[in-house]
Amino acid sequence: MHEFTVTPYAVEGDVDYDRLLEQFGADELTDEQIADFPQPVHHLVRRGIFYAGRDVDRFTAAANCGDTVSIVTGIGPSGPMHLGHAYHFYHAKYLQEQTGAYVYIPLSDDEKRFSKELSFDEIHKHARENVRDLVAVGFDPDRTSIVVDTADADVVYPLAAEFATELTPATVEAVYGPPPNVGLGFYPAVQATHLLLPQLVHGPHPTLVPIAVDQDPHVRVCRDLAAKQRYDVEKPAALLSKFLPQLGGSGGKMSSSDDAPSILLTDDRETVREKVLRHAYSGGRSDVEEHREHGGDPSVDVAYQLLFYFFEADDTELERLAADYRSGDLLSGELKRHAADRIADFLEAHQRRRPDGPISEVVEPYRLTDGERDQLSPEVFDDV
Amino acid sequence: MHEFTVTPYAVEGDVDYDRLLEQFGADELTDEQIADFPQPVHHLVRRGIFYAGRDVDRFTAAANCGDTVSIVTGIGPSGPMHLGHAYHFYHAKYLQEQTGAYVYIPLSDDEKRFSKELSFDEIHKHARENVRDLVAVGFDPDRTSIVVDTADADVVYPLAAEFATELTPATVEAVYGPPPNVGLGFYPAVQATHLLLPQLVHGPHPTLVPIAVDQDPHVRVCRDLAAKQRYDVEKPAALLSKFLPQLGGSGGKMSSSDDAPSILLTDDRETVREKVLRHAYSGGRSDVEEHREHGGDPSVDVAYQLLFYFFEADDTELERLAADYRSGDLLSGELKRHAADRIADFLEAHQRRRPDGPISEVVEPYRLTDGERDQLSPEVFDDV
Repeated sequence: MHEFTVTPYAVEGDVDYDRLLEQFGADELTDEQIADFPQPVHHLVRRGIFYAGRDVDRFTAAANCGDTVSIVTGIGPSGPMHLGHAYHFYHAKYLQEQTGAYVYIPLSDDEKRFSKELSFDEIHKHARENVRDLVAVGFDPDRTSIVVDTADADVVYPLAAEFATELTPATVEAVYGPPPNVGLGFYPAVQATHLLLPQLVHGPHPTLVPIAVDQDPHVRVCRDLAAKQRYDVEKPAALLSKFLPQLGGSGGKMSSSDDAPSILLTDDRETVREKVLRHAYSGGRSDVEEHREHGGDPSVDVAYQLLFYFFEADDTELERLAADYRSGDLLSGELKRHAADRIADFLEAHQRRRPDGPISEVVEPYRLTDGERDQLSPEVFDDV
Repeated sequence: MHEFTVTPYAVEGDVDYDRLLEQFGADELTDEQIADFPQPVHHLVRRGIFYAGRDVDRFTAAANCGDTVSIVTGIGPSGPMHLGHAYHFYHAKYLQEQTGAYVYIPLSDDEKRFSKELSFDEIHKHARENVRDLVAVGFDPDRTSIVVDTADADVVYPLAAEFATELTPATVEAVYGPPPNVGLGFYPAVQATHLLLPQLVHGPHPTLVPIAVDQDPHVRVCRDLAAKQRYDVEKPAALLSKFLPQLGGSGGKMSSSDDAPSILLTDDRETVREKVLRHAYSGGRSDVEEHREHGGDPSVDVAYQLLFYFFEADDTELERLAADYRSGDLLSGELKRHAADRIADFLEAHQRRRPDGPISEVVEPYRLTDGERDQLSPEVFDDV
């Protein structure tokens, strides 16, 4: 039996995604649920990268009726964005195009301050670069809000303070383990605020939270809080994904802070090729003759897996590559170069859309409006 | 031996102020320290109502040299303000007139939400009325800031998040006991922010925190944090007071939430008389003849104690009252009526200054300025 640890603050070992569901108590997506996603179903869902969830049906039913829906998917700004972030945000943007969903993107700078050896200055430098990447994804500015916990503390803290009254230290410790400081002990109340923001702005409606499975505890805590029915909100739905494979081939998550190199959203074609050719774990044989004779194993080949996860949307083309690889017709180096080029194509398009103007102007269309702030914040000194 | 409990969240039993100092590790003020206060020394200090402190010398030395000093003294807006609040704020205003001190007045609405069965709506109603009373005290608007944790969360939360990284749950539990929710577990970081705000705005300088002795743990936590020298601040000084006697005569603190009636800052003369005559614990004898013969005991007479604490500044007049009471010349009812009239005189003057205009206009001169906000808040999206 593989040993592994998955919490919002640590992913270690070879992740067993099925055991994790048992452990977390979430449900694997059924074929019916997959078929119910807005059409055409994104290959991340079709191929089981998003493989589990909670209350996904409420979201898809509302989305298919054209009712109000929203998506919350955030990022902890502790480093540059990489491919492990991109597939989530591009999927959210795809769902937004299909459904008109409001998309809320919280940047948890406070959580990173609480959990990493990084100063707010460093974290905010990353946050500004992350915002450029988020804008490059192409979200509809009229239906998308980027929220930074400290920069939007006028809205976030009063709500988090309200929700904090519902969370005991014992609950937090049971879900996350003992917090190293009182900031991280408080943070689940901030996270709950993130997940409820769309409903607090637009009234009760199904919110989908597509996240890597390690973040599921946050959704559970928020769902328990919403279930108390003291607030006019539905329980947010979770859509849980597997981790994009690391280049080194370990079963953990691609991370901006591990030793294994990540492919950054700002990497150029040469860098991508270099990283993939040098580091991508190969499912090929140790020499060409053996590979031609016995073929490779796409199921463990990271170059293939990157195509499977995200970078080859066409099932026929993907199957052709797998077949050629298995047969030995396609060599490991060829597959790597092909994958690197598909990734670089994707990144070059991303980078063409990535704005390089003043950050205040770049982010402005995505910040909470004054109307939204008034709606969300307590108006202590407003005349009544 | 009397049993008593004193923490920021509970004051019970007959408080032994000397044992409390031992327990908290603060120092009783020496005669030299009292004499070093800016002249003329306020009778609250002269008479030992403010009876102990930490690092008071640094504050008085700087104040006597005309150097920058500040005072932080706040209120938890869980009810209307009463005499137990007034003497602190009037003393702070007196020190401000003497020294030009910046005065910061935090209203901890979040703490009250975390620790009481009150909604933010209820708390904010109290906060608005509290602000009218604070303005009535007569602080210099150019040197006085009223800060409300949620309404000023744009400033308070980012700083509290920074300081929260220095506070472990174990430290908080050791000082305050186990918090009932993660909000109150986080709150000491907010409180540290309050006490350091003047230095964060005006640079390092001596800050005095005049508070009732039950609030001393907050200062200790903040001093430990300041002592780590990661921030450019001095340890705030504490000036610790006894509790204004309750009308009922118990040794605990006057409180807006206990059963014993408090005299509110909005009470009219008739109400004050009625409360004092009916409820003030008397040091007199059980009948007039006995009183005329044996005299009363001012040391346990609440009407006398209210005059001693605050409402009779003139030592000669106070001593005359005590002598007449001891001799039996002054009857208990006469002393009560006299005290009630002095209190009512004070309150009528307070109420004449109490503004009743729109609260937004009332508070405006005391809110943090845009410049102060820019200085205190992280400028995540400012162009650099």
